[in-house]
This record gives sequence, C-alpha cells and structure tokens, in this order.
Amino acid sequence: MATAGKVIKCKAAVAWEPNKPLVLEEIEVAPPQDNEVRIKIVATSVCHSDLYHLLESMHKDGFPTVLGHEAAGIVESVGPGVTEFQPGDKVIPLFLSQCRECQLCKNPKTNQCAIGWTRIRQEIMAAVESRFTCKGKRVLQFMGTSTFSEYTVIHQTAVAKIDPDAPLDKVGLLGCGICTGYGAAVNTAKVQPDSTCAVFGLGAVGLAAVMGCKSAGAKRIIGVDINPEKAEKAKVFGATDFVNPKDHNKPINEVLFEMTNGGVDYSLECVGKVDIMCSALKSSAPGWGVSVIVGWTDMYDIAVRPVELISGRTWKGSLFGGFKSKDGVPEMVKAYMDKKVQLDEFITHNMTLDQVNDAIELMKHGKW
Amino acid sequence: MATAGKVIKCKAAVAWEPNKPLVLEEIEVAPPQDNEVRIKIVATSVCHSDLYHLLESMHKDGFPTVLGHEAAGIVESVGPGVTEFQPGDKVIPLFLSQCRECQLCKNPKTNQCAIGWTRIRQEIMAAVESRFTCKGKRVLQFMGTSTFSEYTVIHQTAVAKIDPDAPLDKVGLLGCGICTGYGAAVNTAKVQPDSTCAVFGLGAVGLAAVMGCKSAGAKRIIGVDINPEKAEKAKVFGATDFVNPKDHNKPINEVLFEMTNGGVDYSLECVGKVDIMCSALKSSAPGWGVSVIVGWTDMYDIAVRPVELISGRTWKGSLFGGFKSKDGVPEMVKAYMDKKVQLDEFITHNMTLDQVNDAIELMKHGKW
Repeated sequence: MATAGKVIKCKAAVAWEPNKPLVLEEIEVAPPQDNEVRIKIVATSVCHSDLYHLLESMHKDGFPTVLGHEAAGIVESVGPGVTEFQPGDKVIPLFLSQCRECQLCKNPKTNQCAIGWTRIRQEIMAAVESRFTCKGKRVLQFMGTSTFSEYTVIHQTAVAKIDPDAPLDKVGLLGCGICTGYGAAVNTAKVQPDSTCAVFGLGAVGLAAVMGCKSAGAKRIIGVDINPEKAEKAKVFGATDFVNPKDHNKPINEVLFEMTNGGVDYSLECVGKVDIMCSALKSSAPGWGVSVIVGWTDMYDIAVRPVELISGRTWKGSLFGGFKSKDGVPEMVKAYMDKKVQLDEFITHNMTLDQVNDAIELMKHGKW
Repeated sequence: MATAGKVIKCKAAVAWEPNKPLVLEEIEVAPPQDNEVRIKIVATSVCHSDLYHLLESMHKDGFPTVLGHEAAGIVESVGPGVTEFQPGDKVIPLFLSQCRECQLCKNPKTNQCAIGWTRIRQEIMAAVESRFTCKGKRVLQFMGTSTFSEYTVIHQTAVAKIDPDAPLDKVGLLGCGICTGYGAAVNTAKVQPDSTCAVFGLGAVGLAAVMGCKSAGAKRIIGVDINPEKAEKAKVFGATDFVNPKDHNKPINEVLFEMTNGGVDYSLECVGKVDIMCSALKSSAPGWGVSVIVGWTDMYDIAVRPVELISGRTWKGSLFGGFKSKDGVPEMVKAYMDKKVQLDEFITHNMTLDQVNDAIELMKHGKW
C-alpha cells in the first residue's frame, strides 16, 4: 500500500488525563517495527476496562493514552520479521498475547504469555513502548492495543487472523468481553450439564457468561442485576430467571440460597466490584460450589471468612475467559459464523469515533 | 456386657470454661439412644481444633464440654436401631458424619452430610444433645464426639468400623489430622505427578499434607515453618526443602517465588491463620496455581486483591481432606496396614488422660 513504511496521520480519541472527556485529535502512527503489524481499525467497542483506566484507577503513569482494546480491523502493513500476516488480512487485536514460544504458552493450564504488556506494567495497563505521537508528545498504547484510533500498531503475537468473510463490525466484540464471559463459564468454571448457575452483572461480559452457561448445558441460569431492563435481555442469551437485588431486603446470596435450596453450582461475577465478588462466592453451594471472578478491579481486597472456602467451595478467576487468545479468537469467530454463539444481539448502538464520549456515557449508565 | 443399658461412671477431662485447664472429673455417660453407639476410648490425641475451642473461639455456649475428637476405641454397647456395629468392634469416631442417605452423601462432589453437628451449631462446635453429665450438670459433646473421656456416645453415622487387627494407639490419628492433611493434597488440591508443592505449617496436618504430596508424586515439596526443628521431621514424610520465614527479610511468598521461578503448583495452608492463608495463595503460580486452606479459623477475613485470583489461581478449602468419612477412614487404616501411609512417625509422646493438660501445653509450644 502507498502508506507502508510511512507515518500515517489519522484520527484518534486521546485521553490526555484521567477523568476527562476524550479529545479527538490527529495523531501520528509510526510504521510497524520488528514483528509488528499496523492495522486499520474498522470497528471498535467500549469495554468497562477502558472506563476503569480513565475513571477509576487513573494511574498517573498511564496518560496520555489512546484507549480501546475490543475491535476488528484490516492489516495495512507489516514490519520486518512478520510472516504470519500480510496487508488485507482481517484481524482482531489481542490485549492478551500468545507467542506460542514461552513456557506459559506451552503450558495447557494457562492462557497467559510471558511477553506483552500484562507481564510488564500490568497495574498501569500501558507499556512504555508506543508508536503514537500527538502534538509532539508520546501517547501511550493502552493494553498493548489502543483501538480508539483509525490506525494502530500491535506486536504480531497480539493479533489474531480471522475468517476473511467475518463481519468486522460484529466479531470485534470477540476481542474482549464476549470471550471473557463465555470462556469464564465454559473454560474456567467448566459449567456442567444440568447445573444451576448465577451470573452477577448483565453487561456484555455477564450476558456472554449466560450464553456460556447455556452452551455448557446448564438447566437453570439466574441473571442478577440492579437494572430491571436487563431481565428481558438476559433471556435472549439463555437466562431462565432474573433477580434484582433491589427488590429484596436481604443479602442477594441469601435470596439465591433460598431460590436454589442451598446455593448454585456455579456463580460468575461480571461486575468488577469486590463486595459482589464476595456475594457471588457465598451464593455458591457449600461443598462443591465454584465461583469465578470475571470482572476486573484491583483497588480493594476481596475479604471473606475462611469457612466460606473450608466448607468446600472453589474460588477462581480468569483473564480473557481462559482462552489462549490467538487460538481461541478465530475459533470463536468460526462459532459465530456457524451460528453457535450470538453476537448481533449484544449490539445496541452503532456510532462513529467522533461519538466516543457519548458511547462512554451510555456505558456508564448501562444503556447498552 | 455388664454395663450395657446402664449409666457408666468414668473419668473424663472436663473443660468447664474457656481458657482454663481441663479438670479430670468423674462423669456419667448415659446408655446409647436410638442409632447411637457407646464406645470405650482406647487412645486419643490432641488436635489444634480442641485448643481453638478452648483458647481462641471460646464460645460461651460451647461450655462445659469434653474436648477431643481424634481417637480410636471399642464398641461397648449399641442403642436401638443399630445394626452396623456390635460390642467389641474396633472403631474410629468421626467428627464429620456420613449417613449415606442424604443428598450431600449421595453427591460425589462433597464429603459433607446433612446431619450431624456441623450442620446445626457449627460455630459453637457442640450440639445441644449430649449423653454426658457431671456434678448434676449437662456437659456438651464437642464436635459430636468428645474423646477426652473413657467412654463416649456417638451417632452411628459418625462412627467408622475398622480392621480388627489395627493398633488403636496408632490409627486413632486418622480420625482427624492425618486424613485432613493427606486428603487436602490428594483429594482437594489433586496434586499431580512431578509438580512442586509448598506446605505451610508442619504440625501433624502439615506433615500429613507433605505425605499426601509425596504419595501423589510431587517432585519438590517445600515445608515452611517458623520452628527449625520441623526441618528434619518434614524430611521423614517426603519434604525435599525446608524454609523458615524467620530466616528471610522478605515475605515468604516472594521467597518461594524465587525458589521456584514463579510460584508453586500447589500450596497448602496447615496453620489456621488468615495471613498465612493469603501468603500461601500468593506463593502459588499465577496462571494455574492451586492453594488449599486446610487450617481452621473463623475469626478474621482472608483478604487479597482480586488480581491474585484473576491472574488464574484457584483457592479452595476442604473439611477432613475431602474424604467421605465412613468410607475414607477404613481405607486409610488399610493403607496404613499395607504400609502405604505412615502413622508411627507422627507420634512423639504417649501420655495418660490425667496428663491431658501437659499434652495441651506440649502442643501449644510445638513440642510434639
């Protein structure tokens, strides 16, 4: 392409500082270096982790940055050493890399990878390396991706090539939330047929967890959310029951205990709040209950009495639903193309990059 | 027997109130009622749970009581409805019942049982029902057993019949600590061959956990204790390394991380302190580490950042090492008779019931 090897000037939404609206700027995107891929982003969605960085953790060393990590695009050019990709390939950026070479990648028990941003400056969520500049300043790349930009540069170990027939405006969702929720049920909790599940928080991750529970054969799936509008949405993905904690005067774990005569087999926390993580654990059955932390937060402790575990429960967590990213994402794209997983039903608004602050507002208020 | 159907007067060590020495008293032990078995206790040992009740939880509704729950004895007489036992049977009391009838007993995922003291007044550790009186007062039975007495009465669902050739002064240890530690490694953690394990606290439970790790084929077993005398003892049961946290200026989880290049595959907390439970979790490998809470305490929270789990760890707990009690104890007795598990090496002192306060002092100071 004519742009290969050259700096690309394009639009991006820059987060100059925490807790302020993003600013649409013209940025410079340098050519891909060794083992890197420059990607034209075709579709991106907003994930709570973007908001977490902007509005909650607000780590001073994490700004200015371009947020966004759940997207799909087309390879524009590749750097030296890249043989797996070529211009025109349809791809999904991966916030979790899979190099296939390190000891972690070779270990079937984990989906983590020894390289990539998560291993280096995890709490800051942005590595020092970046191919972005704006107004003469270096702009950090968020979670190794930064998809709120027309172009981005990503290491080839953090890019998945997908079916060329896949609709990019749909499958971009598989870059984070849907795989995270679905995989948490299927890979991490390992939900069994005929079991009873509870999913706390019915955002995209939670709805995907509901879909994962259904796919695994759960016979009862209880959605839990304080937004009553989620009740109907959850049914679309397979929920059999809906509980709004605000409708009850007792702790939600007690409500679920009564509904299920002793606790659910599997509970999944898809909110990212420590008190809900603890409620989810306590909602699972003593003796065999498995509770999975899917939501992300790292500012407070999860705190329970030891007896909650000694009574025979298992507490787990997972990143990206336990999927090895480069393997898992194309498989999930195929599952969507084969109509085995739903994606279209997650989409509530189609907006332009200029409207990213509106999209963030919609997300903050659960209007999606 | 001549005593059948009659009240037996015998010696027992009565805990009249919390945090006071036990008092050797003559107590009255009523005949067994429906589905109960009266047992002559031949050997009993002291477990930290006895001390926990006496010195730590000190629940006012749990006194006066007769402590002791790790023992072996011979059936003296049986109550109406008992067909499984007859006088002369060698038995081990079970603090965790197995009725084989309830939904929990029929569920292979748990070793809990719907009947028994744990389901009724768990935090008090002593049910309202008792066959003991002393000086005209009702004396509670601790953990459904009370083995610091020459005779006790136990529900038949909480008694295991064992090999008549088994030496009672040895196999009584299988009534609690040894099964708890061994099973936590084998049944709960499901330690795999060639793995690396860390066991925190090298009391009887911890040493049994070491033995379980070895039996499961672990290639490296790191014992952790602040008592340097435990180093040699741990080797007897299969430990390959010993670490004394007092020898290091950094948190023990960091020491273990360095020793193992990224954390152990399995960690087992056998102390019963919440800070050690959290250290044990953090000592396990992000991505796949499994940490099991084996020690007992219920006065403080275990508290860690969610990322400790989200990074891919599993936190579990188990009661009685995950063994279904009536099934597991005779199997472990057989394993001992077949020289597949060690018991003799756990025994450091042989004392009489009169010396029970001395035994408690020895345990408090780790001199056993």
